[in-house]
Amino acid sequence: MAKKMMVLPLFFAFSFLAASLSDALVQDFCVADLMSADTPSGFPCKKASLVTEKDFVFSGLGVAGNTSNLIKAAVTPAFTAQFPGVNGLGVSLARLDIAVGGVIPMHTHPAGSEILLVVEGVICAGFVSSANTVYFKTLNKGDIMIFPQGLLHFQINSGKTAALGFVSFSSPNPGLQILDFALFGNELPTDIVAKTTFLDPVTIKKLKGVLGGSG
Amino acid sequence: MAKKMMVLPLFFAFSFLAASLSDALVQDFCVADLMSADTPSGFPCKKASLVTEKDFVFSGLGVAGNTSNLIKAAVTPAFTAQFPGVNGLGVSLARLDIAVGGVIPMHTHPAGSEILLVVEGVICAGFVSSANTVYFKTLNKGDIMIFPQGLLHFQINSGKTAALGFVSFSSPNPGLQILDFALFGNELPTDIVAKTTFLDPVTIKKLKGVLGGSG
Amino acid sequence: MAKKMMVLPLFFAFSFLAASLSDALVQDFCVADLMSADTPSGFPCKKASLVTEKDFVFSGLGVAGNTSNLIKAAVTPAFTAQFPGVNGLGVSLARLDIAVGGVIPMHTHPAGSEILLVVEGVICAGFVSSANTVYFKTLNKGDIMIFPQGLLHFQINSGKTAALGFVSFSSPNPGLQILDFALFGNELPTDIVAKTTFLDPVTIKKLKGVLGGSG
Amino acid sequence: MAKKMMVLPLFFAFSFLAASLSDALVQDFCVADLMSADTPSGFPCKKASLVTEKDFVFSGLGVAGNTSNLIKAAVTPAFTAQFPGVNGLGVSLARLDIAVGGVIPMHTHPAGSEILLVVEGVICAGFVSSANTVYFKTLNKGDIMIFPQGLLHFQINSGKTAALGFVSFSSPNPGLQILDFALFGNELPTDIVAKTTFLDPVTIKKLKGVLGGSG
Amino acid sequence: MAKKMMVLPLFFAFSFLAASLSDALVQDFCVADLMSADTPSGFPCKKASLVTEKDFVFSGLGVAGNTSNLIKAAVTPAFTAQFPGVNGLGVSLARLDIAVGGVIPMHTHPAGSEILLVVEGVICAGFVSSANTVYFKTLNKGDIMIFPQGLLHFQINSGKTAALGFVSFSSPNPGLQILDFALFGNELPTDIVAKTTFLDPVTIKKLKGVLGGSG
Amino acid sequence: MAKKMMVLPLFFAFSFLAASLSDALVQDFCVADLMSADTPSGFPCKKASLVTEKDFVFSGLGVAGNTSNLIKAAVTPAFTAQFPGVNGLGVSLARLDIAVGGVIPMHTHPAGSEILLVVEGVICAGFVSSANTVYFKTLNKGDIMIFPQGLLHFQINSGKTAALGFVSFSSPNPGLQILDFALFGNELPTDIVAKTTFLDPVTIKKLKGVLGGSG
Repeated sequence: MAKKMMVLPLFFAFSFLAASLSDALVQDFCVADLMSADTPSGFPCKKASLVTEKDFVFSGLGVAGNTSNLIKAAVTPAFTAQFPGVNGLGVSLARLDIAVGGVIPMHTHPAGSEILLVVEGVICAGFVSSANTVYFKTLNKGDIMIFPQGLLHFQINSGKTAALGFVSFSSPNPGLQILDFALFGNELPTDIVAKTTFLDPVTIKKLKGVLGGSG
Repeated sequence: MAKKMMVLPLFFAFSFLAASLSDALVQDFCVADLMSADTPSGFPCKKASLVTEKDFVFSGLGVAGNTSNLIKAAVTPAFTAQFPGVNGLGVSLARLDIAVGGVIPMHTHPAGSEILLVVEGVICAGFVSSANTVYFKTLNKGDIMIFPQGLLHFQINSGKTAALGFVSFSSPNPGLQILDFALFGNELPTDIVAKTTFLDPVTIKKLKGVLGGSG
Repeated sequence: MAKKMMVLPLFFAFSFLAASLSDALVQDFCVADLMSADTPSGFPCKKASLVTEKDFVFSGLGVAGNTSNLIKAAVTPAFTAQFPGVNGLGVSLARLDIAVGGVIPMHTHPAGSEILLVVEGVICAGFVSSANTVYFKTLNKGDIMIFPQGLLHFQINSGKTAALGFVSFSSPNPGLQILDFALFGNELPTDIVAKTTFLDPVTIKKLKGVLGGSG
Repeated sequence: MAKKMMVLPLFFAFSFLAASLSDALVQDFCVADLMSADTPSGFPCKKASLVTEKDFVFSGLGVAGNTSNLIKAAVTPAFTAQFPGVNGLGVSLARLDIAVGGVIPMHTHPAGSEILLVVEGVICAGFVSSANTVYFKTLNKGDIMIFPQGLLHFQINSGKTAALGFVSFSSPNPGLQILDFALFGNELPTDIVAKTTFLDPVTIKKLKGVLGGSG
Repeated sequence: MAKKMMVLPLFFAFSFLAASLSDALVQDFCVADLMSADTPSGFPCKKASLVTEKDFVFSGLGVAGNTSNLIKAAVTPAFTAQFPGVNGLGVSLARLDIAVGGVIPMHTHPAGSEILLVVEGVICAGFVSSANTVYFKTLNKGDIMIFPQGLLHFQINSGKTAALGFVSFSSPNPGLQILDFALFGNELPTDIVAKTTFLDPVTIKKLKGVLGGSG
Repeated sequence: MAKKMMVLPLFFAFSFLAASLSDALVQDFCVADLMSADTPSGFPCKKASLVTEKDFVFSGLGVAGNTSNLIKAAVTPAFTAQFPGVNGLGVSLARLDIAVGGVIPMHTHPAGSEILLVVEGVICAGFVSSANTVYFKTLNKGDIMIFPQGLLHFQINSGKTAALGFVSFSSPNPGLQILDFALFGNELPTDIVAKTTFLDPVTIKKLKGVLGGSG
């Protein structure tokens, strides 16, 4: 009986503490409201009262990407746009499927460092530093490799079976700039590409044809 | 006379400098507009033209919290939700009232380090590190103690009079997770609590009863 | 022909990669939407589909500021308010025009460090550290000088021709607090200025008259 | 011949660019020199000239942890201490092995958010927010879940086979505070634990016995 | 007996977890080793094995500063230099003693925002924004006021008794630049001060005399 | 006379304030000690007592770079390695000299955004976003253009006279990765370059010959 009487004051005490931390005013997390305009720190937060456990879980990486294409590879991201729960939390993931003979072409992530984890198969991966040193290595199942932010890097299936990897980023929105796509997959004029890369116009125009670029 | 004629050009010169820094476009501060959706960096700013000195002052910590409860203690926060002027500025405050025999139970602040200042009374305070080392000490009036971000810590009135403290945080919104409340004050199922804490179901259910939890 | 057939799958593969990075959901940049409310990390972003190359270019620094004033100098900023393309990108610029005998008076930038580049003329520039050490030097064309964040600093045309400089900041919105303007160009009461600066009321009132202050 | 003569100047031009980015002076990465004293931003960097591709690869997560223990689970980290290549790069990884009936007990990471990826088996995972809301869900192979920084969370093998997961962190050194270990696995006096958790001394002493604590 | 046999494996499991987090390799905190050279993020860390609870406690703010001076006030800091435990943790404290008629003169903290808490007496405090707006208010016991980073601000004892305040900062090393000291307490030449402040040389030389400056 | 007697206490009061901010313990700035090992936040600081005004000034950008090379251009950096005064201060500068017909080839800065200021001549500059949109424009004297962090960009002298530009960065050490140098100026094997860029081996080997690469 006495215990029962003590319960309520205690409950009130804790409620008081909790009351100061109500609905939209606590920011443990900030599930992205993708309908609102982005900000330099990420998207505005979905109302806390509307957030459920589903906002923190994403199943899209459980499905293999379609590798029936020329690079024989696919990247499936779980960045803020696909998985709004990571907004503002400094980390995101992507899935790499690389069929036999496939390759993730030379690319950079302007806004994040990356760790590759090899889950199946054999991958030859590497990057080039600002000091122009090349670091590359053949990775087996269970190996991980770090690629520092903003540097050109690549992954090649160097084994005899399909490779599966997962890449973790130091940002919920690391960005992705694929070199060939940037040079040959848009309307950047051929003469500018030539002048700034030392590639000859014939090569450039051929690759623009392959990659959907014009100009 | 000549001096008077020089006044205007000077005034214009400075006005020009000031003109580049008008209304909403300078961000010395960003008083929270709590009606807008939060972002990962904090709330959008109240229009600068509506900001007055009152936005930078808060009187809520001048009133003792109600310690007539089982923990014989109260926490009164001045975080962004209570004191919108701290939004975006990297610091906030709270008041601790701990009656004789009272305690601020084991808790963490997920998003900020804390400094406790003892203003009245004697407080035994401590924290446990990631390396599982315990650091605790009896603090007297005027003593301060730092609690690194995210670590479990506690404060106990170990004196014979009421204790008063103020805690400063390295964030305008440090968060607060009270251990007992997290384990026993919500609908987390008893069997999950049991499996993840090694506490027995009877103890868990008893504390759930005390702290308002279910399941 | 076979090559043609390979083109499409490759194109699709890259399209897939690009698809995950559509419109408002990539944040390489965040051109400020100045009509929206600011946040602690900067302004919300203009819709990516509305962004053009014009958002990344600013021509306002190509025009000399008007130095026909008492300080014989002018500051022309390219901060977020003038050049929304820098929003969220951690850097901005301003132009300094200092006529013969002119001076950029003692001031601070509360939110950014600064590098001065002398493009024309001779400038004597300096700053005072928290340890109260004075660092100043005469700078010639091509010289650069760094002014650490938040410290009082100044620039004086110490040559016989007009001086032109450009200042770079470690923030898109470094702020600008001109000492004389802060003390004498607003309604801060004369007795408060006197008590907090040790200047005498007569001097203060005279400068308030010159700088447009009251009180 | 003419081409040959053009080669050298070009080579020199690029060398000049590269020369400004020599040895220890470029900081794309900062492989930890674990023998030096840590700093708030991480360990000092290993000399760039001694860095090889091996510094960026870690094979320790390829080996299953030993789950022959009471929790039937093991955590194998690839933080800075084990994988110095992640130092300063804002991301790290760990491997979770959870045998049938096993559990990763309630814990926090004081310095990082976490994404769990389920590679094999079925895992029930969840966390408690500052607002004391519980979010938990059963995850299948390929599912990922985000746990915001500093919040209490857990993972339970809820399937009929061994579970394998990998967790990514938003920090190279996220820390790890296991609740039971913090309360019962050190010399924190029983009466302090009792006062700050509402657990009774008998329960505490029993768990201290199990977990190696004293006092 | 069976229970005893279960103890060891469990103990080993947790030991394994802890083993990955040994001595210098966990960075919950980084108590400053003031004998080592500082870095942009703070001082290198004292060896974890040498850290005790004393490193996290500071008693220097318990003693009133000596206000027998012209400003009738004293500032007692607990920054990294005095309290190495705050190194890297983003927060620090200082004590303000202001006798009747005393004043903390106009000053800035280049590297941190500040919250003032009035513990005894009445303080008139204020700051000037980049937009040159003045915000000031009379604060009573228990009131708090925020001063955004880098802006000129002041505190005046406006009551009839001694005032005591504590100020919290968003940095372990916020810096302190006292305006009068910067202008008149060093060797900055009088003519430079005159040109950059519009004060007349007689006033400057008089204040240099009072504040120990030369030149 | 009375005034003289007041001088000393005031001087002492300020000395007291200053005393808390002695030598190595104030961090307004952190001039790099390039002989020490770098850290993730920059180099350790030169002893404050050894710092002079010369540490904050750099004259290397006053000299035109040598453009007698194939790209007819030169980049002269003032990053931490050349100008240790910028260490830890979040901003740096470089000089661009581009002769008639010259070009700064396609490159990225992994760790900083850039603003180009055209001081002489006409420059065509542009970048490609993660969404693969191209933004480029012809810039005249006085124009500035922002290049967001980590994205491929270029500058071409598109006028009939030599061009001079200065580029400001949001980091004291932004890094520099020149595309052609990364692909063709090191020992990255030709077959890896071919697989990851879709360039043919003949083109690659030719460019390796020009740029000094092997393999």
